Amino acid sequence: MSLSLYDISVPAFQRGLDVLSHLLDQGIAHARAQGQDPERLLAGRLAPDMYTLVGQVQSASDAAKFGAARLAGIAPPSFADTETTLDELRERIAKTQEFLRTVTPQSMDGQEEREIVIRPGGRELRFVARDYIRGFVLPNFYFHLTTAYGILRHLGVPLGKMDYLRGAA
Amino acid sequence: MSLSLYDISVPAFQRGLDVLSHLLDQGIAHARAQGQDPERLLAGRLAPDMYTLVGQVQSASDAAKFGAARLAGIAPPSFADTETTLDELRERIAKTQEFLRTVTPQSMDGQEEREIVIRPGGRELRFVARDYIRGFVLPNFYFHLTTAYGILRHLGVPLGKMDYLRGAA
Repeated sequence: MSLSLYDISVPAFQRGLDVLSHLLDQGIAHARAQGQDPERLLAGRLAPDMYTLVGQVQSASDAAKFGAARLAGIAPPSFADTETTLDELRERIAKTQEFLRTVTPQSMDGQEEREIVIRPGGRELRFVARDYIRGFVLPNFYFHLTTAYGILRHLGVPLGKMDYLRGAA
Repeated sequence: MSLSLYDISVPAFQRGLDVLSHLLDQGIAHARAQGQDPERLLAGRLAPDMYTLVGQVQSASDAAKFGAARLAGIAPPSFADTETTLDELRERIAKTQEFLRTVTPQSMDGQEEREIVIRPGGRELRFVARDYIRGFVLPNFYFHLTTAYGILRHLGVPLGKMDYLRGAA
């Protein structure tokens, strides 16, 4: 009854990406209700040298996509990071979720101790798969999801914690 | 070789709380280098109706404390949420980590399907333990850790993603 690599990864990504779509929807609805252009949300960021909302969504998508692909030992789809509209961001999220639906629990079975090597920003990091998912991918995925939430809140979108935790229970 | 409730909870909390202490240290060092009072960081927040840095640290502590205690079926220590200085916040983090060191892997063994009921903000949420940790506690813990990071970045503290992911590999 313990948890598999799949149990702690793909369902968490799917739920988090549902949340991310919901947050964007709330941002769009709020902007429209205020008579503002929703696309102005895209350039929001928390500090001048942090990613914008666009970058946060792309990074959350990448964390889920690469995380699942590396655990399963399969090639991830390539996404070009060319999104410039909210509709394109929502499509990016949907494509990521579509890929995640093709990843099977069986593909990760028994892979807990397999070595995974990544090179973020030119630096080499080596993990076994169980540490890669719990110590690197999940914190990184939630970082980008939470920062997207923080950007929208900072721009005045009325969200609450349960918008972020929705679907948890 | 699959993962236990303990594997995906207590080590993640300990690492995350180490990160949180590190982020506060970086904030203090930066403020001092600028000739500013570090305690001014405490009131930082991303939106007027979001928690300040103080509240984010308290909430990260609570997420770890209650999460571990409920999985282990033990009573958590009570912390009074009275911190008003950075030193007190660091002490709060240290006390939380001290409690986590008393929680054993054995106390969570075989508890994956035990029902856990919580009442955040008056609303009742029911989980089995495995869903409570992966769908509620971990996203919530990383929410407060990431928002603390976001507040410090928003206030100009020079941090990078590896300050947040340190200790992962």
